[in-house]
Amino acid sequence: MKAKIHITLKNGVLDPQGKAVGHALGSLGFEGVEDVRQGKYIEVDLSETDADKALENVDAMCRQLLANTVIENYEIEIEA
Amino acid sequence: MKAKIHITLKNGVLDPQGKAVGHALGSLGFEGVEDVRQGKYIEVDLSETDADKALENVDAMCRQLLANTVIENYEIEIEA
Repeated sequence: MKAKIHITLKNGVLDPQGKAVGHALGSLGFEGVEDVRQGKYIEVDLSETDADKALENVDAMCRQLLANTVIENYEIEIEA
Repeated sequence: MKAKIHITLKNGVLDPQGKAVGHALGSLGFEGVEDVRQGKYIEVDLSETDADKALENVDAMCRQLLANTVIENYEIEIEA
């Protein structure tokens, strides 16, 4: 199975990387960019064949390693 | 409108960051992790109200700044 994980900063947490991208887009002449937020996207291939177990497993991975749950949210999608 | 952009490494391009995450998961005792690929996820808020124009605009942003099209693929999703 494949897990697709989105890790994004929580609302209210400053995102200097996103701000930098927003400024760079402005410098390049792109207008109408109101806000940019940058997050991470991780794909994990698993040998697990049970979707529920895979989700549980990946949730533990996010809590223990992939996401900093103090400042980040994560979303997991499991695909066959 | 909001644009959600996924930037991933093309197949065949080495992903040391993903490999490091895979090894770290192994060290933490997670079994059955076959492969990890890490990409970027960017959300851009736009003042543009026309979805087609927004898509065109964001496509140009990806080609000019956000993605390195030599080694990366990008996917854009436009939301109202």
